[in-house]
Amino acid sequence: MKKEDFACIHPMRVRWAEVDMQGVVFNAHYLMYFDTAIAEYWRAISVGREKEIADLYMRLYVVKATVEYHGSAHYDEMIEVGCRVARFGRSSMTFQFAIWRGAEHLISGEIVYVHAAPEEKKSAPIPDMLRDAVLGYERTVPDAAAAGVPR
Amino acid sequence: MKKEDFACIHPMRVRWAEVDMQGVVFNAHYLMYFDTAIAEYWRAISVGREKEIADLYMRLYVVKATVEYHGSAHYDEMIEVGCRVARFGRSSMTFQFAIWRGAEHLISGEIVYVHAAPEEKKSAPIPDMLRDAVLGYERTVPDAAAAGVPR
Amino acid sequence: MKKEDFACIHPMRVRWAEVDMQGVVFNAHYLMYFDTAIAEYWRAISVGREKEIADLYMRLYVVKATVEYHGSAHYDEMIEVGCRVARFGRSSMTFQFAIWRGAEHLISGEIVYVHAAPEEKKSAPIPDMLRDAVLGYERTVPDAAAAGVPR
Amino acid sequence: MKKEDFACIHPMRVRWAEVDMQGVVFNAHYLMYFDTAIAEYWRAISVGREKEIADLYMRLYVVKATVEYHGSAHYDEMIEVGCRVARFGRSSMTFQFAIWRGAEHLISGEIVYVHAAPEEKKSAPIPDMLRDAVLGYERTVPDAAAAGVPR
Repeated sequence: MKKEDFACIHPMRVRWAEVDMQGVVFNAHYLMYFDTAIAEYWRAISVGREKEIADLYMRLYVVKATVEYHGSAHYDEMIEVGCRVARFGRSSMTFQFAIWRGAEHLISGEIVYVHAAPEEKKSAPIPDMLRDAVLGYERTVPDAAAAGVPR
Repeated sequence: MKKEDFACIHPMRVRWAEVDMQGVVFNAHYLMYFDTAIAEYWRAISVGREKEIADLYMRLYVVKATVEYHGSAHYDEMIEVGCRVARFGRSSMTFQFAIWRGAEHLISGEIVYVHAAPEEKKSAPIPDMLRDAVLGYERTVPDAAAAGVPR
Repeated sequence: MKKEDFACIHPMRVRWAEVDMQGVVFNAHYLMYFDTAIAEYWRAISVGREKEIADLYMRLYVVKATVEYHGSAHYDEMIEVGCRVARFGRSSMTFQFAIWRGAEHLISGEIVYVHAAPEEKKSAPIPDMLRDAVLGYERTVPDAAAAGVPR
Repeated sequence: MKKEDFACIHPMRVRWAEVDMQGVVFNAHYLMYFDTAIAEYWRAISVGREKEIADLYMRLYVVKATVEYHGSAHYDEMIEVGCRVARFGRSSMTFQFAIWRGAEHLISGEIVYVHAAPEEKKSAPIPDMLRDAVLGYERTVPDAAAAGVPR
């Protein structure tokens, strides 16, 4: 994961409340950091279509999350959380994450979201509007799930 | 604060995620413990009127919270969180809290809630139904705010 | 994942603070639930060797965590979090998790821990004492990573 | 509480994970926001004495915290958290907090810290170095507890 592949990189400072007895950020909080970075991602791609995007992401549900821990962040350190859309499926989109402290790559991750229609509770195709907004923003083209792949 | 004054005492075990670098529960989490104990309080007084109470507490808003720290809880310790209604005002109710580890009294606290009417966003009288439910459950009679006292 | 394969199943009630604006448990908190269940696991296998196990798990570091979301837990619901050791490597152990609400399987997950020697910061073999404690407790025999597989 | 009385004002954005089912920041998190602002305060007064201040604040323990809720912050809103030392006692110092969204004053609060000697677990006088650092930074002079007042 190269920093320059990420259009969206969000700096944060580690809070006291996020650090555990081992002196490192508690493992679940990195997933919360990912989620915090995603808010910046939505903002970045929403320009001029704020309402549509806001409506839409309330209908996205996480179906899978993965975190890989290469290193640890500590209290009061500045970190950067990068996020990008790495893959589109019919009704899913996969975000990829990386967390750095300076040049050091601490954390990798992935979150798969599924788009669900509001009334029914079943998956619905990712709207073209969202796909276009992502493609217009990203530096690298997300993979598209091969035809025939479920979701 | 005597344990025997509390009809509602909720045991919890301190979680790893709640303990900070000093090896003690992070100070804000005690407020979350209070909130967790309140869920047990609502359950206790709701028997036979579940729907009314549930509708009601969604319209209660915290206006003031106080925590006093006499001691610290540590990872994996069993604690008990007691909560009782200590005072009624016209549109407010004040919960009192205590946290013990065994016989040791670690934390005291208070949360003042105000009842707000759903449509308008201003305070509304505490419904008699709620007052009755509390009085039927508590071991000691809550104070009533003196006449003329706002809220 | 069958409930009966889990020797360690920990009941919890969803807290208000854990539920988000969509009315479901915030995705990162399931990882915290896993961690909370693990505390019960350590307790269960520690009987008679409390000190050794406590020293040891302070030297275990998470290297990978995965959460799969099949359903959502809501405020005040009782859930059960099961955890078991699914696999041993030379210096790693993999926990498997499942969360149920009644018979409904909501969440699956996995956390890989690596054992690190205290002085040096590099991986060290899982002590036999820990392996024995796990084997003596589990209902199913964890896989052992095949020879030659790193970690 | 006037914004211009605060030398230390820290902007933050409300995170998804911090908002509850009522669509507002969960009440305990404001206490965490205070704590986050304090980290900025320590940084601000530490210039040139980083090590001494860092050693020192690890020996400060919260003895009382108060939060008053005048309004609510919502998801993704930018807020400002101001903190200042309002009062010194012999071994205590009291921080005052305010949270604004733009010109609107949402939250007030106070945290009382006590300085404890490392070996013994009893209160110790606030070191002159800390008092000087605070006085050199603040815009308004903190009150000193009257003689004879405990702590």
